[in-house]
Amino acid sequence: MITLAVDCMGGDHGVAVTLPACRQFLDTHPHAQLLLVGRPEALGALVHERTRVVAASQVVGMDDSVEVALRRKKESSMRVAIEQVRDGAAQAALSAGNTGALMATARYVLKTLDGIDRPAIATQIPNVLGGATTVLDLGANVDCTAEHLLQFAIMGSALVSVLNDDPHPPIGLLNVGEEAIKGSEVIKQAGELLRAAAARGDLNFVGNVEGNDIFKGTADIVVCDGFVGNVALKTIEGLASMIGGFLKEEFSRTILTKIAAIVAYPVLTALKRRMDHRRYNGAALLGLRGLVFKSHGSADALAFEQALVRAYDAARNDLLARVRVQVARAAPLPVARDTVL
Amino acid sequence: MITLAVDCMGGDHGVAVTLPACRQFLDTHPHAQLLLVGRPEALGALVHERTRVVAASQVVGMDDSVEVALRRKKESSMRVAIEQVRDGAAQAALSAGNTGALMATARYVLKTLDGIDRPAIATQIPNVLGGATTVLDLGANVDCTAEHLLQFAIMGSALVSVLNDDPHPPIGLLNVGEEAIKGSEVIKQAGELLRAAAARGDLNFVGNVEGNDIFKGTADIVVCDGFVGNVALKTIEGLASMIGGFLKEEFSRTILTKIAAIVAYPVLTALKRRMDHRRYNGAALLGLRGLVFKSHGSADALAFEQALVRAYDAARNDLLARVRVQVARAAPLPVARDTVL
Repeated sequence: MITLAVDCMGGDHGVAVTLPACRQFLDTHPHAQLLLVGRPEALGALVHERTRVVAASQVVGMDDSVEVALRRKKESSMRVAIEQVRDGAAQAALSAGNTGALMATARYVLKTLDGIDRPAIATQIPNVLGGATTVLDLGANVDCTAEHLLQFAIMGSALVSVLNDDPHPPIGLLNVGEEAIKGSEVIKQAGELLRAAAARGDLNFVGNVEGNDIFKGTADIVVCDGFVGNVALKTIEGLASMIGGFLKEEFSRTILTKIAAIVAYPVLTALKRRMDHRRYNGAALLGLRGLVFKSHGSADALAFEQALVRAYDAARNDLLARVRVQVARAAPLPVARDTVL
Repeated sequence: MITLAVDCMGGDHGVAVTLPACRQFLDTHPHAQLLLVGRPEALGALVHERTRVVAASQVVGMDDSVEVALRRKKESSMRVAIEQVRDGAAQAALSAGNTGALMATARYVLKTLDGIDRPAIATQIPNVLGGATTVLDLGANVDCTAEHLLQFAIMGSALVSVLNDDPHPPIGLLNVGEEAIKGSEVIKQAGELLRAAAARGDLNFVGNVEGNDIFKGTADIVVCDGFVGNVALKTIEGLASMIGGFLKEEFSRTILTKIAAIVAYPVLTALKRRMDHRRYNGAALLGLRGLVFKSHGSADALAFEQALVRAYDAARNDLLARVRVQVARAAPLPVARDTVL
């Protein structure tokens, strides 16, 4: 039996999305049980033999600052869900709450693993190979040293080895060109650390990759700092949304284009399915002494269910132990300088 | 009369693309004349009363390093084209040659403007408003200080004031969130410099923007360092190419989807036109004592012609003087530290 602690109140839609997703997930996962964390009066819509309500009186808002979440909302559903993992009552926690608050709370409650300076957020982006490229970090760490990037690579490798059942998934370093001499000073140093780690057999480092390689699937894991990762992810979301809007607009322009839309419907549906980011919902917070997953705040029930599946698979395959082992094997990691200008 | 110096040998396709593009451009621009720079024997396909051949015996290859371009190819068509600008024979130069070599050669031959530490590359990306967002820097400067980012904002503002005929185009700073407290140390400092410049009336700074704002058109100009800009641009190219590939694949899957493709053809063509990066070909190298434009290396004749139009418009509107004035007005610019770690 795998137990997940679910922050049922988080995200843009709260229980309207999380509870139907939990029900659907339970139906397809007979070996899972869920701790439904939130205000008990809001959780009545889901009664199931494999759920248990864990009361939490507060909710972290999507716009709450890290300070508010940490200091004034100690009874939040987000925090109580993470505490279930700390206390051993659940093997993983999931929240659609705001990223900054979730990362800060998870770090405060669970602490980081030995050898890890900063936890990272890893997400999956669909690629042309029909699979997905795992990109990290995505927003948690804006000023990174080369050592931080090495740690991200190690954690990403552990995650993908679980996801893809491949002990040595290929890792690329996001850069402005393939040549080792390219890039900023930090990136060049990170390249050296990664090559050294690969030479020791700790990692399968394939070298520098560029932005378009995320979609080509050149490497299973793409490592970058949180600033670059966040910009890349938001750029992807912006372009996908613009193209979707263009398609809708062009197909609804005249009666003829509306007919074309009907004829092309199966094709457009297939395209939408291939591009559907909901299938890849569920980012992993890596480097903590416990498993925490983050759903997109605007997730619908299907997307939230996917994030539940992701958290379940990670717990079932003991991702935490894999990260620990890979971090320890690569130890002693160089000590990271804490700030860079 | 506006005279442009055209590196006819550069890019993936050389004269096969540049000469037809030049002919087409001349037909629609009666007040333009072109200096066709390259090996005279390769330029015979275009004879026109408003062209003149300027001989250059060498060609910078797409994979040539900056060192090779600068030291061993002093007679390259790229360099000779830029020298036409330096010598006053042309008001702007255009090349589809490799970016690193072009920037280094332009910087060496023309030198930077007073008050500018580093030239930048600015390109346009279509947005949902039907216009385009100008993004800079794109690859030339990987380690930037806050002062460099301020300079990029000033140069970008001058460029867009010419392109859009708007004296105070809105400028955004690419960041991981809208709040001023977000981002890396360099970005936070850049935000302060930009707010101060806006308070003095030098710039129309609208604040931080995120990756998706490039497509929303939240600001006409988006400023970032060359590393982030390059990653964003390549990510955009990668995603657009993947979606295009998916559409093609889905529409050619069965006989029914092929029929759907025929019915949907006008819509798909409209979509393609709206997304067509060729319409936005022609990146500006800003901050030099002369106008230089860069065409995409893989440009076809239509795209290269667009880049010619862009260079022509910039020369006709005296972009160089506008950049000089805006840089001088914002002077004394803070002295930029030359390297950051």
